[in-house]
Amino acid sequence: MKNKIKIAILGYGNLGRGTELALRACPDMELVAFFTRRDPSALKTLSPSVPVYSVDNILDFKDNIDVLVLCGGSATDLPYQSPKYAEHFNIVDSFDTHAKIPEHFENCDTSAKKGGKVAIISAGWDPGVFSLMRMLGGAILPSGKDYTFWGKGVSQGHSDAIRRIEGVLDAKQYTIPVPEALERVRNGENPELSTREKHTRECFVVAADGADKARIENEIKTMPNYFADYDTTVHFITAEELKRDHSGIPHGGFVMRSGSTGEVGETKHMMEFSLHLGSNPEFTSSVLVSFARAAYRMNLEGLSGAKTVFDIPPTYYSPKEADELRRELL
Amino acid sequence: MKNKIKIAILGYGNLGRGTELALRACPDMELVAFFTRRDPSALKTLSPSVPVYSVDNILDFKDNIDVLVLCGGSATDLPYQSPKYAEHFNIVDSFDTHAKIPEHFENCDTSAKKGGKVAIISAGWDPGVFSLMRMLGGAILPSGKDYTFWGKGVSQGHSDAIRRIEGVLDAKQYTIPVPEALERVRNGENPELSTREKHTRECFVVAADGADKARIENEIKTMPNYFADYDTTVHFITAEELKRDHSGIPHGGFVMRSGSTGEVGETKHMMEFSLHLGSNPEFTSSVLVSFARAAYRMNLEGLSGAKTVFDIPPTYYSPKEADELRRELL
Repeated sequence: MKNKIKIAILGYGNLGRGTELALRACPDMELVAFFTRRDPSALKTLSPSVPVYSVDNILDFKDNIDVLVLCGGSATDLPYQSPKYAEHFNIVDSFDTHAKIPEHFENCDTSAKKGGKVAIISAGWDPGVFSLMRMLGGAILPSGKDYTFWGKGVSQGHSDAIRRIEGVLDAKQYTIPVPEALERVRNGENPELSTREKHTRECFVVAADGADKARIENEIKTMPNYFADYDTTVHFITAEELKRDHSGIPHGGFVMRSGSTGEVGETKHMMEFSLHLGSNPEFTSSVLVSFARAAYRMNLEGLSGAKTVFDIPPTYYSPKEADELRRELL
Repeated sequence: MKNKIKIAILGYGNLGRGTELALRACPDMELVAFFTRRDPSALKTLSPSVPVYSVDNILDFKDNIDVLVLCGGSATDLPYQSPKYAEHFNIVDSFDTHAKIPEHFENCDTSAKKGGKVAIISAGWDPGVFSLMRMLGGAILPSGKDYTFWGKGVSQGHSDAIRRIEGVLDAKQYTIPVPEALERVRNGENPELSTREKHTRECFVVAADGADKARIENEIKTMPNYFADYDTTVHFITAEELKRDHSGIPHGGFVMRSGSTGEVGETKHMMEFSLHLGSNPEFTSSVLVSFARAAYRMNLEGLSGAKTVFDIPPTYYSPKEADELRRELL
């Protein structure tokens, strides 16, 4: 029997917990430790037999961990954590600040090469799986246009923005693709779509007693960057209703490539990939875990440096052997 | 400016013509020759400036071709052509006899390694792009089930089978996914679906004057392997109607992965990929061409042997540079 791949998790929020659960579905991998910036004794995980350590001691475990899964946030955690730990561990992260990916890649690449490790970055669903679909569409149908729609799903950033408004106790915001826009793309119309034409935003807001709801609604709808460019609907509900009906973190979306071939582009083709996710963090964690497998294998073959979904032969993230894949899935 | 990748086409049926057209959308590639088993002077291509040679002389061009795209059929051409030419050229084929892929892989691998070349096999849409989707779904959501549906599209094999029936002048057969089955899968029911529950077959038949249509319809519907296990509809139409309404070769299909995560599988996820293709051979050719790019690049890096879509880092089949991909598509 082969040795299991030894995985450690840094950070125990939604992603860390999702990774912990995703690993249970992978018999070729083993969760060996949690690392936290909090007091380790205060951390209650779902795996009482797996030790929890302070991240301050993480380097003591350098030789006992095959891949470190970074479960922090893209805003403040990953920009420093990924390069820092990529020198000592094979790592995988889901860094998702699109505009800063080139910089993050360079930082992780330098550090991982220095340590002879593999750092797989931005391995979630977008960036990640959706990126792969965009690339595939463009490579196969170079004469064409691609479209990405997000939702229906919860945007944490937009929910937070509403919560900062005076008189708002709690809120949840859903991003929703406009059905007519999806249909126009599917019909091969290759439309130019404005921000407003692609997505709508729906907000569920718990207001404080006596708060001016008209003002709150107006502040939401006119908020620059977040809502002003969208058709936004605001519903005021009770705290109980919010908890009962909106406590999940679903998400998803669509990547579509509308392309043409033939002598004068007379033949139309449509490639469409969609995700409907019961839980955004649990799916992201599942992607992280499959790419952790890839990081381990690539490093085992002597590779080092930063990698993205574009650089990784798919066989590396499957638990199946190459001949099994050819026989069963090709 | 970089040198263009020099491509040659062997075989000028639907796939060869599709490859010829697909290359026009790829400024990094150049079509340098056609090879044929027919009399070269009798072959009329859409590219009068590109020379046509007899395949008997193909080895004379060993040093002038970067990748040979094999556009023959899987039944009788590719099983001998791919191994034969993989020793002398980087090749790409769309071999699609699923059960014989392991054998074809071994034959091409031996030959390509002997010649220090790369042979990418089964690089169409199924096997090919659909295979990648099946693998991706299983790797990310190991607790789950995958489903492949084909159509609506023309099955050449089934159309041929009808044409062999006495009294049939011409015929076209469409494979159609059952909408209710697609919906059940999308709903996360994870159904066990029989052959009959997944697809229906619709046949458009031109009968000879005075032929016994009832007998023909019965022979179709009871034909073992081809139709007996399906709900089949037969329409008798005129030769003119067949030509007017059914001369295209559309195809497509769906790959779905229904999976769950969480403590007890309580969170449901759905990954769905679909193709709606105006022309089966033109899309297959477009896949072949993007993988021809990959074959060239992999060989340039010193790799050799047989490869499938599972073995190839996606960046190799995109015309974009790695940093461009990260900036624009990740």
